[in-house]
Amino acid sequence: MKHFYHLSEFNYEQVQSLVNRAIELKANRDLVDLKNRQVGLLFLNPSLRTRCSFEVALRQMNCGVSTLDAQSLWKLETELGAVMDQDKSEHVREAVGVLSRYFDAIGIRAFAQGVDRDQDLLDQTIRTFMENSQSPVFNMESAMYHPCQAMADLITIQELLKTFSKKKITITWAYHPKALPMAVPNSILLASTLMGMDVTLAHPPAFEIHSGILDMAENHAKKSDGSLRIVNDRLAAAEDADIIYAKAWGGMSSYEDKEQEEAQRQAHKDWIVDSELMSKSNRGLFMHCLPVRRNVVVSDSVLDSARSVVLQQAENRLHGQKAILEWIFS
Amino acid sequence: MKHFYHLSEFNYEQVQSLVNRAIELKANRDLVDLKNRQVGLLFLNPSLRTRCSFEVALRQMNCGVSTLDAQSLWKLETELGAVMDQDKSEHVREAVGVLSRYFDAIGIRAFAQGVDRDQDLLDQTIRTFMENSQSPVFNMESAMYHPCQAMADLITIQELLKTFSKKKITITWAYHPKALPMAVPNSILLASTLMGMDVTLAHPPAFEIHSGILDMAENHAKKSDGSLRIVNDRLAAAEDADIIYAKAWGGMSSYEDKEQEEAQRQAHKDWIVDSELMSKSNRGLFMHCLPVRRNVVVSDSVLDSARSVVLQQAENRLHGQKAILEWIFS
Amino acid sequence: MKHFYHLSEFNYEQVQSLVNRAIELKANRDLVDLKNRQVGLLFLNPSLRTRCSFEVALRQMNCGVSTLDAQSLWKLETELGAVMDQDKSEHVREAVGVLSRYFDAIGIRAFAQGVDRDQDLLDQTIRTFMENSQSPVFNMESAMYHPCQAMADLITIQELLKTFSKKKITITWAYHPKALPMAVPNSILLASTLMGMDVTLAHPPAFEIHSGILDMAENHAKKSDGSLRIVNDRLAAAEDADIIYAKAWGGMSSYEDKEQEEAQRQAHKDWIVDSELMSKSNRGLFMHCLPVRRNVVVSDSVLDSARSVVLQQAENRLHGQKAILEWIFS
Repeated sequence: MKHFYHLSEFNYEQVQSLVNRAIELKANRDLVDLKNRQVGLLFLNPSLRTRCSFEVALRQMNCGVSTLDAQSLWKLETELGAVMDQDKSEHVREAVGVLSRYFDAIGIRAFAQGVDRDQDLLDQTIRTFMENSQSPVFNMESAMYHPCQAMADLITIQELLKTFSKKKITITWAYHPKALPMAVPNSILLASTLMGMDVTLAHPPAFEIHSGILDMAENHAKKSDGSLRIVNDRLAAAEDADIIYAKAWGGMSSYEDKEQEEAQRQAHKDWIVDSELMSKSNRGLFMHCLPVRRNVVVSDSVLDSARSVVLQQAENRLHGQKAILEWIFS
Repeated sequence: MKHFYHLSEFNYEQVQSLVNRAIELKANRDLVDLKNRQVGLLFLNPSLRTRCSFEVALRQMNCGVSTLDAQSLWKLETELGAVMDQDKSEHVREAVGVLSRYFDAIGIRAFAQGVDRDQDLLDQTIRTFMENSQSPVFNMESAMYHPCQAMADLITIQELLKTFSKKKITITWAYHPKALPMAVPNSILLASTLMGMDVTLAHPPAFEIHSGILDMAENHAKKSDGSLRIVNDRLAAAEDADIIYAKAWGGMSSYEDKEQEEAQRQAHKDWIVDSELMSKSNRGLFMHCLPVRRNVVVSDSVLDSARSVVLQQAENRLHGQKAILEWIFS
Repeated sequence: MKHFYHLSEFNYEQVQSLVNRAIELKANRDLVDLKNRQVGLLFLNPSLRTRCSFEVALRQMNCGVSTLDAQSLWKLETELGAVMDQDKSEHVREAVGVLSRYFDAIGIRAFAQGVDRDQDLLDQTIRTFMENSQSPVFNMESAMYHPCQAMADLITIQELLKTFSKKKITITWAYHPKALPMAVPNSILLASTLMGMDVTLAHPPAFEIHSGILDMAENHAKKSDGSLRIVNDRLAAAEDADIIYAKAWGGMSSYEDKEQEEAQRQAHKDWIVDSELMSKSNRGLFMHCLPVRRNVVVSDSVLDSARSVVLQQAENRLHGQKAILEWIFS
């Protein structure tokens, strides 16, 4: 039984092979018959792209799909040994036990809760699912990772730049009115270093990526003959880049001090991807996972330009997830 | 690529042909295989009939269907050039761009908002979808039109009266505790005049149909050798009618003055379809799009009589929509 | 046209035959093709197991399924002759009439409302559905019965004890912070007596099962050569039992006096299934319909022991419902 948790559990060759397979499946949507397998998609947080792309992918591969949200479940207890005399009427152990007896695989979305930093770093919800499930669990964005997005990003890069090795990607923090989770920046950072890209990570001070993720990324870069540098100057970071990958995220250092985190964020409203920034790049592509705040994270002029490939990225969610589902069931 | 927006975009022969095809599909539900096409149904407003009939129609035609509601989407920005630093996290241009890359067609329901009359008359939401979509968009009730309902109405008339030409239909306003949207009355008015029926439109003063729609209806009647007259006397309107089609709608003239509109509406609580009214007709059929308020819009005695064909109308939603889907994909 | 309302409408042989068929279908999930029939599942109350198991069962049998909740419907009027000028915009007669013209069968979940005891005893919602539907209606838990749960319970007993006759089952009340409905205890009581088991029903005074159900159970026991005894001592009730079936339910005698009912319930917090209770049994199995409150209804030590078969019960929902669906459509 194979869970699909994050891309760093695969090596370079495995990821390259998934990317290639996704591109094959994009060219021929009826290539795979997964024989009426039944899959449950459980969204503890909102979703548009992930939900629709998984539903379509599964039906195109002849699977059945049930989509559940937090309202579909009883309120779940997660603590071991809890005396359940309050408002939670089902323990996650029973919920997962039951669901995994009905479904041939279960996708789970469980964002960071943004309350307890150490708790979020443990990625506890998806881990509890993987531990208690009788069938494969796949990650539709957990507190720490969004591997389906990273897979779509890699497919898009492969389609447009033909190779990963030595291609320059700048992953740049952007201002956003909310402190967003870290799963997407973690995942593109790990995926790009894993594939041997020359990676520049740009953010204001106080918006560091967690050291555990940075360690993994540095190990990836060493093994793949890529590189990783971290800079705090948004314009300098864009120089010569083949790709500008923008993403907003909340500050890890002030995770539990909402006011301080907000103040730190508000101080950097100038971190927007605009034409000036793009002009520093090597006629770079603009990438973003969507949804994106126009004229906050990226200017209309960049998002509506021919260099913007965000819709291609979004479409590639569909094809990448087909490759992932095929891998899970093979 | 063909959008399905409203019936007045078709001519008499095309509508007659869709009606005939729907009746064929009703007789043989397994006639068409749309080859696992994937369709998204997006409901920005509630639905029972439309949702269920489209889901069943699509699966009977071997399509996959994803049903989304407003909660499934991120809160959408619709303004061009907006600086998205408030509560809306996705622009409708990206949302439609993405959805139309996953789905082979998209159905959209977006009622009139009842706040800004001119805005509603522009039917902006469905138009934005049609403008930004890579795949066909079909109308599951917009601010201005409900063509799937009109199609079901025509199928029912064809089944019961065998022809449209010269058949007398009275479209009568009815009292309702809320100011309802105009999509249904607009659509049956346009459809019946398009098909050459003798149409009587009955409503109290202050409940006029919008002049742009009336102009279209008059043009339809001229071309189809039908007729259109407007009266303010509910009983006189019913005389000799083959069909009494009841529908409540809010006043267009006091659209943005809720209190005045309500006062105008409350003054006409006697506008109910009851046995007295039906007795004026030519043993007329009673039609309504449902849901209907019993003993407010229509009396139990009429709704439960053999002349009431509301359930047949509702069933014909299914068959009409199959003909529409087949047209979209052909 | 066959409705599936509750198991007491079947005789011993019919139920045994459904149980056997379910076990066959468990061994071979692709045994039955129900030919793209379209089924609507209408949940007026929350569901996890029932929803997922029916969705999977239907798709594995090549049916299409639409899942609706209370929000999917317009607010329904149920009173005959009502003047619908308040907040309810559709009468249940139209809603059912329409749905049953789209769907080849309709599943309905409508819990007891816990307000009016006599109203709940009449099981009015599902009865209204059965009376107004053009297609078969099946019970996904009504105010009075949960026959799909009882079917799963019987399948589990058959698998583990090989026979029903003379097997000792103790159905024991358990404390719970809320006054839960009676459908599950009613249904396992009726099913176990129907199948000829030796049944002990255990509860504190004031938590009697309704006399109408008790009469049916006694008649079942007489006919099946089983037995039924009622005791108020939780430990004594467990003696020599092959099965301990725990379930919380609210008091029938104080149904409309919430404060008194709560006080009666709070007085019996010691009614938990723990190791001491299980040790009285004949190495008994522990059964519960789920969701279950850990360390309130049952201790972790019992629920996590090898004697606990709650996940097997839950899985058997899937297989039992397949046998039921096959029966409905045969």
